Amino acid sequence: MTRSPIDFYFDFSSPYGYLGSHRIEALARKHGREVVWRPFLLGVVFKDTGSQPLVEYPIKGEYALRDFKRSARLYGIEFVMPETFPVSALAGARAFYWLADRDAGKAKALARALFAAVFRSGHDIGKGERVVEVAAELGVDPEELRAALADPAVKQRLRDEVGAAIERGVFGSPFFFADGEPFWGADRLDHVDRWLETGGW
Amino acid sequence: MTRSPIDFYFDFSSPYGYLGSHRIEALARKHGREVVWRPFLLGVVFKDTGSQPLVEYPIKGEYALRDFKRSARLYGIEFVMPETFPVSALAGARAFYWLADRDAGKAKALARALFAAVFRSGHDIGKGERVVEVAAELGVDPEELRAALADPAVKQRLRDEVGAAIERGVFGSPFFFADGEPFWGADRLDHVDRWLETGGW
Repeated sequence: MTRSPIDFYFDFSSPYGYLGSHRIEALARKHGREVVWRPFLLGVVFKDTGSQPLVEYPIKGEYALRDFKRSARLYGIEFVMPETFPVSALAGARAFYWLADRDAGKAKALARALFAAVFRSGHDIGKGERVVEVAAELGVDPEELRAALADPAVKQRLRDEVGAAIERGVFGSPFFFADGEPFWGADRLDHVDRWLETGGW
Repeated sequence: MTRSPIDFYFDFSSPYGYLGSHRIEALARKHGREVVWRPFLLGVVFKDTGSQPLVEYPIKGEYALRDFKRSARLYGIEFVMPETFPVSALAGARAFYWLADRDAGKAKALARALFAAVFRSGHDIGKGERVVEVAAELGVDPEELRAALADPAVKQRLRDEVGAAIERGVFGSPFFFADGEPFWGADRLDHVDRWLETGGW
């Protein structure tokens, strides 16, 4: 029997999404699961839930910055807070789905490289050209990707993915589904682990 | 050398505060620490941070209900969601500090009993008379407590505590300080544990 994959929803501009991206594959492997990476746009979801980026709340935002760094150190993950923040995940997410339809493995590599560009190098991937550069290092043809980023079908593909995420109840980043059970937050990965181990409780 | 106590800030109407209250004392004991319980009023803090109770956010609120129950089951803690929610923590918090000045141990017992009244029995402790009943079961004189709840000095005592909490950067429930380091959320208790074990990282 094939066991169902873990769905991993995230926004490229989400520090906790970045931290989750470093832990989810090992966790899945432990349970013989695959991970389906699903970038979405937190900004669209925030409109529906009346939320805003954590760092933009007074007081809470300062704590969040401290917790991002402290959590990264705890898990031994390199982390810098980019000067431009939040960054738009639009171009990165479009590039991801366009590439995923051609080469799922390479799309995952692109997602990791985009996260690293933001939270290790502090780059602003909101600029489409930066996404093209990051993808080029993975052997993606710049001209093809530039054309894809402007392609209405590619834009629609992302809109559909974001719509499907909202439909499913995703409202934060990272967000996981394990055997249909929703888990919000990098700090719920221990619960995901336990859920897969026990079959739920 | 006496090691400094853990400060435990919470609102009596906070499900995660309730869950945290079941785990913090054992954690502190493990590290030879005391816990100072510090009820405050989340509603006052929400005004400063532009937040609202988790359950009142669309979509996120439904997930929160599921996560309260799932987290409680994981830790083996009895939990019901009260019909009246959120409840006002005002009378409970006033009673707590009034009692704490007389008998710190009994104040902690009252805090536990008030949490149980809300999240095990589903009672509305927003009504001062309900707080008086809960306290009476611990041997607190009802007349004395009724008088205290109406006493301007007792009201001021709570205002001072809430002000001090805000001053310290507390913006959610539960909120902990371990050796001066702030931790927000019942799901940060594993980090608190590690922090006390390692002296920080």
